[in-house]
Amino acid sequence: MLKKVTWEITPQRTALIIVDMQKIFCEPDGDLWVPSSRDVIAPIRELAATCRANGVQVIYLRHVVRGDGSDTGRFRDLYPHADAQFARANPAIEVIEELRPEAGDIVVDKLFYSGFHNTDLDAILRMKDIDTLMVCGTVTNVCCETTIRDGVHREYKMIALSDANAAMPYPDMGFGEVSALDVQRIALTAMAYEFGEVTTCADMTQRITAAEAD
Amino acid sequence: MLKKVTWEITPQRTALIIVDMQKIFCEPDGDLWVPSSRDVIAPIRELAATCRANGVQVIYLRHVVRGDGSDTGRFRDLYPHADAQFARANPAIEVIEELRPEAGDIVVDKLFYSGFHNTDLDAILRMKDIDTLMVCGTVTNVCCETTIRDGVHREYKMIALSDANAAMPYPDMGFGEVSALDVQRIALTAMAYEFGEVTTCADMTQRITAAEAD
Repeated sequence: MLKKVTWEITPQRTALIIVDMQKIFCEPDGDLWVPSSRDVIAPIRELAATCRANGVQVIYLRHVVRGDGSDTGRFRDLYPHADAQFARANPAIEVIEELRPEAGDIVVDKLFYSGFHNTDLDAILRMKDIDTLMVCGTVTNVCCETTIRDGVHREYKMIALSDANAAMPYPDMGFGEVSALDVQRIALTAMAYEFGEVTTCADMTQRITAAEAD
Repeated sequence: MLKKVTWEITPQRTALIIVDMQKIFCEPDGDLWVPSSRDVIAPIRELAATCRANGVQVIYLRHVVRGDGSDTGRFRDLYPHADAQFARANPAIEVIEELRPEAGDIVVDKLFYSGFHNTDLDAILRMKDIDTLMVCGTVTNVCCETTIRDGVHREYKMIALSDANAAMPYPDMGFGEVSALDVQRIALTAMAYEFGEVTTCADMTQRITAAEAD
């Protein structure tokens, strides 16, 4: 097994990015329910508590649009009901109760998949002198991975949490059906080879608490 | 089989983006040789000729760095020999002879995977009023797909050419080895579901020539 990079962790220069853990994706009656999102709620909640207790900034991303069609060109082409599904006024865009943001956490709304594109995320991170980002949430290969790709291009040290990213299966788009497990396996492999570090929540918990105890 | 989008083609508003068909990736003695890149040379050459004859702009991307270490932070962390391998002065960064750029083509050098990040690609496309981009080259899921993700965020109508993108296999990064075929299959599926249209060179040739004949 090959591991290309292991970033040194300074809690005050590290953030946990919780991607799109919104009702629309994470509740069984959500329009775009990702079943495996249930499995990542407990690990994310636990790691977020560790972060808050050890000086690691917790940041939530939410996918939210105006709802009037003015900001959803290509996104609406790909998801025809996006204007209604992701409208600011729709309660489905809220973060699930189990992971409700706490005082001191930061929420960044984005119009598309990436947490960096046309948002103030980069400015917030620079103001706080944060250079290392742990990414978790839904879905592994789209909003999480696009944020990771955008982050490494901006010179952040990116970390994908292998047991706190949830993937979904795909229907046959011309190349056969793809299982959520295959999506997850290949996304994590490519991220570990091309974009940064991939590790578990337990490993990060250990490294954060060890660094903070120093 | 599901197809989410089929963009209408206006040749004058369309470009062919040929990604990283450089000697380092495409020649058997290249440091980072991608064996399947040999299979996409002929389709790309043929489609590029059709584009030049029908008013579709041909644009090459090349991965090139200064070579002095000043512009390769995270990229060097992931590819420790990047400064030598991708240096401007290294002939390995040139486009392979079989696809040598012709008069009227445009070459855009980039520092990392994305054709858009910190380059003038977006400005060039806007100046030419181009809104639709066909993407081909190496490797499917990294430089090609990152450019596609960045393009759709900028509201371009993105097209991945299924038979003109070359993928490579991955070693075991903790989740088992991954074949080039699996990388290709899953990248094309995710691109067709999340980021734009996926189709063949033959289909695009037909649509470009039909539109130009109108």
